[in-house]
Amino acid sequence: MNSGATYPRGFKAAGIAAGFKASGKPDLALLLGDPGTTATGLFTTNAVAAAPVVLSRKHLAAGGGRGVLVNSGQANAATGSRGDDDAATAGAAAAAMLGLAPTNLLQCSTGVIGEPLHMDRLLGGLALVVDALSTHGGDEFAEAIMTTDTVAKQSAADAGAYRVGGAAKGVGMISPNLATMLAFVTTDAAVAQEHLHTLAHDHLAPHLNAISVDACESTNDTVLLFASGAVQGELLTPSTPQWDELAEAIRAVGASLASQLIHDGEGVTHVMLIDVTGADDEAHARALARAVADSPLVKTALFGLDPNPGRIVQALGAAGVPIDPARIDVWVGDSQLVHAGVIPPAYFTTERLRASAVAAMDGPEVSIRIGVGDGDGTARVLGGDLSYDYVRINGEYTT
Amino acid sequence: MNSGATYPRGFKAAGIAAGFKASGKPDLALLLGDPGTTATGLFTTNAVAAAPVVLSRKHLAAGGGRGVLVNSGQANAATGSRGDDDAATAGAAAAAMLGLAPTNLLQCSTGVIGEPLHMDRLLGGLALVVDALSTHGGDEFAEAIMTTDTVAKQSAADAGAYRVGGAAKGVGMISPNLATMLAFVTTDAAVAQEHLHTLAHDHLAPHLNAISVDACESTNDTVLLFASGAVQGELLTPSTPQWDELAEAIRAVGASLASQLIHDGEGVTHVMLIDVTGADDEAHARALARAVADSPLVKTALFGLDPNPGRIVQALGAAGVPIDPARIDVWVGDSQLVHAGVIPPAYFTTERLRASAVAAMDGPEVSIRIGVGDGDGTARVLGGDLSYDYVRINGEYTT
Repeated sequence: MNSGATYPRGFKAAGIAAGFKASGKPDLALLLGDPGTTATGLFTTNAVAAAPVVLSRKHLAAGGGRGVLVNSGQANAATGSRGDDDAATAGAAAAAMLGLAPTNLLQCSTGVIGEPLHMDRLLGGLALVVDALSTHGGDEFAEAIMTTDTVAKQSAADAGAYRVGGAAKGVGMISPNLATMLAFVTTDAAVAQEHLHTLAHDHLAPHLNAISVDACESTNDTVLLFASGAVQGELLTPSTPQWDELAEAIRAVGASLASQLIHDGEGVTHVMLIDVTGADDEAHARALARAVADSPLVKTALFGLDPNPGRIVQALGAAGVPIDPARIDVWVGDSQLVHAGVIPPAYFTTERLRASAVAAMDGPEVSIRIGVGDGDGTARVLGGDLSYDYVRINGEYTT
Repeated sequence: MNSGATYPRGFKAAGIAAGFKASGKPDLALLLGDPGTTATGLFTTNAVAAAPVVLSRKHLAAGGGRGVLVNSGQANAATGSRGDDDAATAGAAAAAMLGLAPTNLLQCSTGVIGEPLHMDRLLGGLALVVDALSTHGGDEFAEAIMTTDTVAKQSAADAGAYRVGGAAKGVGMISPNLATMLAFVTTDAAVAQEHLHTLAHDHLAPHLNAISVDACESTNDTVLLFASGAVQGELLTPSTPQWDELAEAIRAVGASLASQLIHDGEGVTHVMLIDVTGADDEAHARALARAVADSPLVKTALFGLDPNPGRIVQALGAAGVPIDPARIDVWVGDSQLVHAGVIPPAYFTTERLRASAVAAMDGPEVSIRIGVGDGDGTARVLGGDLSYDYVRINGEYTT
């Protein structure tokens, strides 16, 4: 099936097993747009950025980026100048095979931090992955970028004559800040690089930044948006009906990938949809929502199906955002558990009140709505719970 | 034995069972200094401060504070105006029994957020706890302030002719910021309130702020420092030999209580002593150390005895502090796992390198030393690991 990143016309993709993963599963992926494809990226703000992040930023700044090479197994972060050399060598070799200038091939790596790229396997796999490129390769691409992901994440949407597609990976060390894990979104519209960046910043970032598995921003987070222009037509520009339609489709793909990522988060059994309203501005709203999503006490309470409004109030108060405690309202599902900063005493004595909140938590997604005043700032953040499995996954294995 | 808060002369303390705890254990505590006792406090910076925090701040601002009443069971936070009224009523009633002006009795509450104070039990227990006051009551006081603490925390130190003592409680929702859980430190030196504040700020705060169980700053954090002046002599003032000796003893008591708190943290099986050097200033050093202490990925790795230098580097990079990745050095025990920003490739291939770091982690305390440059900023933060028991404690019970 023609899905995910190859749903839009003008893209080929592939995923093959190069031997990075001991399991023998696919671990080297390639996505390539037709000549004329434009690209833009959003990257981790972690001060310790991985070598491929540094390289991809440079290529995009030079106006390049028709495709991306992705390896899963080593993150090529904290690898020093050797890591930079390895990334440059791998990129140049792959670009040469594809007949591209090196700047036209971006690069992403994901896996263990510090371990050098296994260059023999990477270089050995290049011919295979180039040969496998196909307009139907979206599934193979999405599978080969996975690390400890349990399911491949893809999405597609239509925008009039245009198509939008995408693939993403990531289950831990996920708390993006202006960028996110690895996500690749494609469209067959024709969009100039500067306008593509607007689309990525305004319509992908809000969704892909709004998820937190464990409050840990990775060294390798990268979001790439490619436009092939395979659908004939004018270059799309802002403030046109087609632009708005395309933006909406990009939003839909971003939201879908973000939701798939958080649901597959390490050990996640329930996802909180945290909506904050009434904050002074969006940044404050986001900080408040994120403080709740990142609180280990809220996360463990969610795992234990304990509404525990005190922990939500504690997290809001410690968010570092000026708020008036007397304006805080909190709902879990349809149950209001905090009224004007006060947890109703009846909550502690009336089983029915507690039971309806518990029932609202007992599903794959839990709505937590928070009002903090009458400002215009709103934000939604998606957070996972903290389960025994998170401890097992991260305590028992080196990742 | 004359221990903890009553080790210094001029203090009486008591702890009795007022019925807050279903277990019937002591849950109402009182500490009182002789006439002339001065006091100062450091309080939570959580925007949602509990009613007793608001009340104690007010009393101290009015120059009051000869003693403190502490209940364990309800936190009296997110309780609105009812909570303020309850705190004022309880304080006034206790002060009247003791023949004190209301401003002379500070107040602390710890327990479930939102649940109203059980005023019948509190008022019913006042006569009992006042009657039980004793110069040997330190042990009872330290026991009655406990919530889910598994051991009472006390400390004592000498400073020439003076004595310093203290008690503290807290095992979860612990990530103090300018203040901490509940800690009570006493001395029999005579110190004016303004100078006492200097001692608390300069010598208690650095230790009691430097611990993090779960990155969650409580609504009730309070540190109180009392000076009875029971040792006859001049008022102590800064820049005298006696002052320095007293400050040193206060530091020792603060460090001991902080260490006891983190070792008893919820589910904590190993404690990290994270020392950062070479940062631009102390605030940066502290932010970097705290980012490592608070990282769920570092915490779970510690639980699993996995040195995982990549996770330490990730946490440093995401700390929000400007650092040069190429200046990062990290040691776990005596094993240097990051050299100038690079994890030596041998780490991944040489079992001996890894084994010695694992061995360094296999004890109750693990030294993690981090250099980030040649600045003057240094800081130490103590952090616990993240174990199955943390999830069990916080997922299976409402606290």
